[in-house]
Amino acid sequence: MFKENEARESGFSVALDEALDALAFNSDGLVPAIARQHDTGEVLMLAWMNREALEETLRTGRVCYWSRSRAALWRKGESSGQTQQLVELRIDCDGDTILLNVNQKGPACHTGRRDCFYWKADGERVVLDREPLVDPQTLYKKS
Amino acid sequence: MFKENEARESGFSVALDEALDALAFNSDGLVPAIARQHDTGEVLMLAWMNREALEETLRTGRVCYWSRSRAALWRKGESSGQTQQLVELRIDCDGDTILLNVNQKGPACHTGRRDCFYWKADGERVVLDREPLVDPQTLYKKS
Repeated sequence: MFKENEARESGFSVALDEALDALAFNSDGLVPAIARQHDTGEVLMLAWMNREALEETLRTGRVCYWSRSRAALWRKGESSGQTQQLVELRIDCDGDTILLNVNQKGPACHTGRRDCFYWKADGERVVLDREPLVDPQTLYKKS
Repeated sequence: MFKENEARESGFSVALDEALDALAFNSDGLVPAIARQHDTGEVLMLAWMNREALEETLRTGRVCYWSRSRAALWRKGESSGQTQQLVELRIDCDGDTILLNVNQKGPACHTGRRDCFYWKADGERVVLDREPLVDPQTLYKKS
């Protein structure tokens, strides 16, 4: 579907179900999803979605991933409160990557940092260059 | 390495080789790499890198991926001229995703569009909403 319609003009559309059916999920049934803060353009994180996570995200407007470590749906912020509200969901030319423009509440990273990309290559070193916004202990403490 | 140092303060660094050794490549030896236009914050594309592509990118300052379809190094723009100059390379908290802040020359997408994310979910439809900057035929014609 994606390849065969790539030369269409702006405004062309297909049914959501047809597009979801045509996604190129990997052998684990997942596609990578990039979360970007919609207004600032910060890339916050990359996580993975299966079809169920995608459908829930579109239905609820709250971003839901698939946790590969827990092998379960992962409603972002369900433990930490640091939710992602969906502003816009996009699919790429090959139908194998999702871009989520979101409104991130607080830190996206489990370390308490705003985003997950806090290691920066600098010559022969890789430097950690972001401070946590909040103590990660406060994100996951039991109530 | 990434997990054990996640509570370090800003300014902490490790050797580049140590960081590359600690990357969580998948079973194909690849990590996803997000390309973002460094000044506008546009997410341009997602592609894949192996260690060799990463090292070449850092060495040359010109982004090189691994093409899964061609099973070869893919020096972005080598056919089309639409190169990506590396501005900054970042690694995420889990060491399993790369963020490339780049300066993209012209369109990043093989369709001639600026970025690859031109399908937008809109209710029960998915709408194509980007026009090519250039005719893709002109990008790949034989010289």
